Parts: sequence; structure tokens; C-alpha cells
Amino acid sequence: MNLQTLAIVGVGLIGGSIGKAAKERGIAAQIVGIEANAASAEWALANGLIDRVADVVPEQADLIALCVPSDLVSDWVVKLADHPAPIFDVGSVKGPIVEAIAARQPVPGQFLPCHPISGSEKSGPQAADATLFDGCTLVITPLEHTTAESQRTCTEFWQALGASIVRMSPQDHDAALAATSHLPHLLAFAYMAQVSNEHLPLTGGGFRDFTRIAAANPELWWRIMRLNRGALSEALDDYSQNLAALVAALEQGDEATGLALIRAAARKRQAADQKLL
Amino acid sequence: MNLQTLAIVGVGLIGGSIGKAAKERGIAAQIVGIEANAASAEWALANGLIDRVADVVPEQADLIALCVPSDLVSDWVVKLADHPAPIFDVGSVKGPIVEAIAARQPVPGQFLPCHPISGSEKSGPQAADATLFDGCTLVITPLEHTTAESQRTCTEFWQALGASIVRMSPQDHDAALAATSHLPHLLAFAYMAQVSNEHLPLTGGGFRDFTRIAAANPELWWRIMRLNRGALSEALDDYSQNLAALVAALEQGDEATGLALIRAAARKRQAADQKLL
Repeated sequence: MNLQTLAIVGVGLIGGSIGKAAKERGIAAQIVGIEANAASAEWALANGLIDRVADVVPEQADLIALCVPSDLVSDWVVKLADHPAPIFDVGSVKGPIVEAIAARQPVPGQFLPCHPISGSEKSGPQAADATLFDGCTLVITPLEHTTAESQRTCTEFWQALGASIVRMSPQDHDAALAATSHLPHLLAFAYMAQVSNEHLPLTGGGFRDFTRIAAANPELWWRIMRLNRGALSEALDDYSQNLAALVAALEQGDEATGLALIRAAARKRQAADQKLL
Repeated sequence: MNLQTLAIVGVGLIGGSIGKAAKERGIAAQIVGIEANAASAEWALANGLIDRVADVVPEQADLIALCVPSDLVSDWVVKLADHPAPIFDVGSVKGPIVEAIAARQPVPGQFLPCHPISGSEKSGPQAADATLFDGCTLVITPLEHTTAESQRTCTEFWQALGASIVRMSPQDHDAALAATSHLPHLLAFAYMAQVSNEHLPLTGGGFRDFTRIAAANPELWWRIMRLNRGALSEALDDYSQNLAALVAALEQGDEATGLALIRAAARKRQAADQKLL
């Protein structure tokens, strides 16, 4: 893949990592960063994540990466509706973004909603990592009028960064991510909120891993959970039923029911380890 | 510290790690393993975690480590009530163990309830790790009649393995561990039980870490959570209140409340990182 000008709107952890990876892999001759936070823009430029800073997406850009928070994506897509280049976003929700655009105008054919299943509890360009997408799953949720050219260009770009492409509907994506990502964050935030400082010396590796995602960017996660609250609420219901069943079994000493539930969880997690590590 | 004969009852992950660490550090001239599972005993012997296998704790043992599941500790303490050596256990709950002994006879003065805050989702002697206790916190919960000699010997032993000693009451220990360890396991089991296999390709590092403890030994964890269900239920109530508040904020779009809760969680977890890593 050989791009002339890659435009990255939002040079934080994801945008910065895209810039760094694209540069290291020689995918784009020039990388232009559009970033409202002047300090982030400067840092990204000084540290070679991008080649130059601009106020607007250049006319000649041949691929546009929207790496802004999910609730800002629709504004940018509307603003860039007449730009001829393929556009993708990296938001953790897909349906609400598409709906927010469709409420204002037909969704432009060059816009392909994307989501790399990869991230970190860190944020900002300082945390950018050129290997962040190597081996990760990239979900694309093409719409009825998404152009074949946009799908081809975006797919090739992500594959060049090392990602594997999975195609889903926006609704299936949002339901799956509510279960696998948004719900764990919700639970970890709620859990961590009631841990007291005097508890900390009494914690081990299990606690550390279980709570790691609670250190994630609060503003970003408020927005994601708020946008996807419908699917999140359904995932929460499923989980709550399991929790209630396990708690009832513990209280009643119903070992058959409780142990069956724990064993199913452990078996599933052990099997997953082969795929996750 | 120079022991003549260290007896380890239960040579699984914790017992095996104690044997391995004691041997590598030259703390005991001889290490005797008492283990009901013949395959585990053989493996531990063949791999040098213990020096010999016995059916009963030898008369000449000068320290006895009870590394059996929490609900079997009281039987062993009663059985060894007339043995002169200091005895400690490593159970994840303390109050219920002490109560189970006290229901049958006065708790022997040489028994010191201990709990190393260190573990793994793995189990069995094959997972034994000589560095498991290096830098870990070791909670001791001495009782009214615990002898000074037992406290001194057990404390010196654990310090020789690299642990830092924290002294608490059994009740305070159980409340703290319910919050920091048993509740995360309960939530992770309930969460993992509703994850479907088709979700797995859509998971990232956050999911992997959040669910790691759900791969833990089901029988062991059923017993721990069942024994400590009183304190666990209180920790669950605190957590449930936070979760309900956060869910309500998401549904109502109450950003001030929701974001404040998430920010408090993230700040606490980020601050904890300094101490946890």
C-alpha cells in the first residue's frame, strides 16, 4: 500500500499509533495531523508520529482517519462529506455514529465505520505504539451505500498495519462490544469506586489485572457507555442474572448450581487463553 | 532461620511454592510433604519441591504449614492439637476457620492463622514458584491464646521467604479480602459465564486482564466464597450501590454524577499503580 497523503484527525493514543505504524511501515509518503490540542499536536510532530500539522484536512489527502471520540465523529463526517477520499473512524460504537450522521444527511459513501479491537488504559500521543494494531481484529461495518473503493482502501490500510478484518453490521458490533468491552469497563469502574486506600496493601495480582481497565480515560468511557447504553443495558441484564444465581447459590449452600456456574466460567476462560495470549 | 524439619500438608500451588522457596533459600534441612493426591506428591518429590513424602506429620517437625483448602484447615488443626510445633495455615478466610476449630475445642496456642496475599489462577504443584512470596504481604491474625513462640517462628519463616507481615483481626482480614479478592472473583465468574465463544475474536487486552481470575480453580473458589459469604455479601452491597448509581447516570444522561464516579475510580486505580506494580 502506497498513500501520498494520510490525514489523521485527532492525534491521541489511536491516531498517534496509526501515524507511527504507518510511518515505520512506509505506508504513506506524508502524514498530516489535525489536532485541536496544541500540546498534543506539537508532541506528535516533535516525536515523528506525523510529518506536519494542519488546521483542516488537506484537499489532496487520499485517506482520512478520524481518531476523535465517538460522539465527535458525526460532525467530522458531515464536515468532510464532499471530500473525495475514503474516510474511516475508530470509534468503539458504530450504530449511534451512523444514526447521528443519518439524522443530518445521507451517510457519505466514502465513509466506512471501523473499530480496531485494541487499546490501552493509557491515552494521549505519548502512549502511541507502532505495534498496537499488529495482530488485532479490525471490525468494519459497511453500510448499504459504502463504496467498494472505500472498503478496499481502508481494508488494505488496516491489513498493512497488521490487523485482521472482520465484517459485521453496526448493531451486531455494538451488542458484541457491549458484552466484551463496555460491560467490563462499567463493572470495573463501579468496583474500583468502592475500594478504599487501606485495602491496597491487601491486594495481589488478581486485583491488579481485574481493575486495570478502571484506570482508562474517564471522559472517553463516559461517552462510549452513554452512546451504547442500549446494548450495554442488555449485556448488564444477562450478567446480573448470572450474578444473582451465583449469589443465591452461595447463600443457600447450593453447591451443584454454584459450582456448575463457576466451572462453566473457568472452562470458558481457560479455553479462551489459547486464543487471547 | 534454620529449621530441621518443615512439614507441608497439601503440596499444591501454595504448598509447593513454600517447599521450593524454603529449599532454594536453605531455610529447612528437610522438607516433608503430606499430600492425599498421590500424583501430586510424586511430582513434587521428583521435582524437588519436597525431600520426602509421609502419611502423617512427623513428630520431629519444627514447623507445620497447612496448605489445604480453607474448609479442611480446622480438621488438621484439631488432628495436630497435641503436636508441639508452631502451625500456620494459608487460607483465604480466617474467621470461619477459627470458628470451626473453636466449635470443637479450644484453639491450640501453637496455631497462627496466616494468609499470603499472593496467588495465581493456576493450581497444582506444577505451577509452584519459588518467588511467589517475594515482596508479598503476609497477613497474620493472632488470637488471644496464640503463643509468642508460634508468632515468632511463623513470622521469621515468612520473612525469610521474602514476605512483609501485616497483623489484623480475623474479622478485619475477612472484610478486607472480601472487598479486594473474593468480590472480584465473584464478579469475574458471573461475567465470564455469559460470554459466548463468538465474542472471543472481539476481545482485547482489557477483556483478557479483567477475566484472568475467572480461570481460577472452581472448587477452591466455591469454598472460599461460601465460607466468607457474610463479608462478601456486604462488599457486594457496596459495589451494587455504585453500579446502580452509574447505570442510572448513564440512562438519564447525568454526566456530572456519572463522570464523577468514573473519575474517582480512575484516579484511585492510577494512584494504586505506583504501589501495585
